[in-house]
Amino acid sequence: MPPRGRRPEGGPDTRAAILSAARELFAERGFDRATMREIGARAGVDPALIHHYFGTKNGLLVESLAMPVDAASVLGGLVADPDHAGSEVVRRVVGVWEAEDGTRERLLALFRVGIAHEAGAQALRDVLGRTVLAALEQVVAADHRALRAALVGTQMGGLFLGRYVLAVPGVRDATPEQLARAMGPAIQHYLTGEVAPRATARRRRRAG
Amino acid sequence: MPPRGRRPEGGPDTRAAILSAARELFAERGFDRATMREIGARAGVDPALIHHYFGTKNGLLVESLAMPVDAASVLGGLVADPDHAGSEVVRRVVGVWEAEDGTRERLLALFRVGIAHEAGAQALRDVLGRTVLAALEQVVAADHRALRAALVGTQMGGLFLGRYVLAVPGVRDATPEQLARAMGPAIQHYLTGEVAPRATARRRRRAG
Repeated sequence: MPPRGRRPEGGPDTRAAILSAARELFAERGFDRATMREIGARAGVDPALIHHYFGTKNGLLVESLAMPVDAASVLGGLVADPDHAGSEVVRRVVGVWEAEDGTRERLLALFRVGIAHEAGAQALRDVLGRTVLAALEQVVAADHRALRAALVGTQMGGLFLGRYVLAVPGVRDATPEQLARAMGPAIQHYLTGEVAPRATARRRRRAG
Repeated sequence: MPPRGRRPEGGPDTRAAILSAARELFAERGFDRATMREIGARAGVDPALIHHYFGTKNGLLVESLAMPVDAASVLGGLVADPDHAGSEVVRRVVGVWEAEDGTRERLLALFRVGIAHEAGAQALRDVLGRTVLAALEQVVAADHRALRAALVGTQMGGLFLGRYVLAVPGVRDATPEQLARAMGPAIQHYLTGEVAPRATARRRRRAG
């Protein structure tokens, strides 16, 4: 494939062009099948320059897994209204996904790389920890922050997969507002509810 | 690679051997990179026999995506105690995942195939619809069954990815019982709570 818009090698946007080409090709062909040669061709640079900037393909992978949105600003201000934050988290996050600006495709590419192999999983865990989970930890109650944030994250991640990737009818066909209302109390529980109760009365009765 | 334990071609367990080899190789190398020749070698049969039984590689994919556990029996009897079903769903499902009997690896292979490309996503959607979601629809309240089941499914699917694939510390380090207690009320909400409320008082106040 001929390079598109060959850039001056070593120019200020060379690094960004390589990352952009890598993201596209990892999404299109998967991490294993995308080659440094193809990424160089797509970015319009010599593959040797990729090694210069990023070392190995794994290094390129980690750098390319930037979140396409700023989670902290998506979730900003929620602490001001803790009692209604549950549905608002869903409303804002689904709003970002539905924006038709390419964010959803880039998130899907992240997921694909993260689930395909251990190096991808590690890179995605680091990225999510620094962005989405760190932002969520600012919104949740003061106890068990990591657990609360991770539970919200797993629910929203699972919704992303169910709605856009697997297209499971029950969540594919709901409007964003229907999802916000249906999921609000569950997310609210993770944000501010009791997440580490002692054994329930029922279990204690059983034991007694 | 030499075939392991070559089986009589066309024998009664040939089909099962092909499916088992396909599952292993799709998990190890991904759907795109696993070849019919490799699958034949692993199963100890001529690749032509794979075409005979399954047609294309896509056909083999769909057949190989059987759920490794019977969701209906995992979730059986929950309706008898609807008020405590939320935490019990988590307890039973995580119990299946933690069994160290290969189920988790087979579920991960399912996810990988389902997220890698559209044919896999379609196949996984069909399998989940017939098994996990159908079983969940028997447990949830009578209204909005598909939405309720899909919400439970997305939360549990997201937990699987967060705990075992991405290994996000907040959910990786919790015990199964901690997860059951932390997630119980959220799952309970999806099972029997109000999932289609009208606009909340707060939103009505805003509009008024």
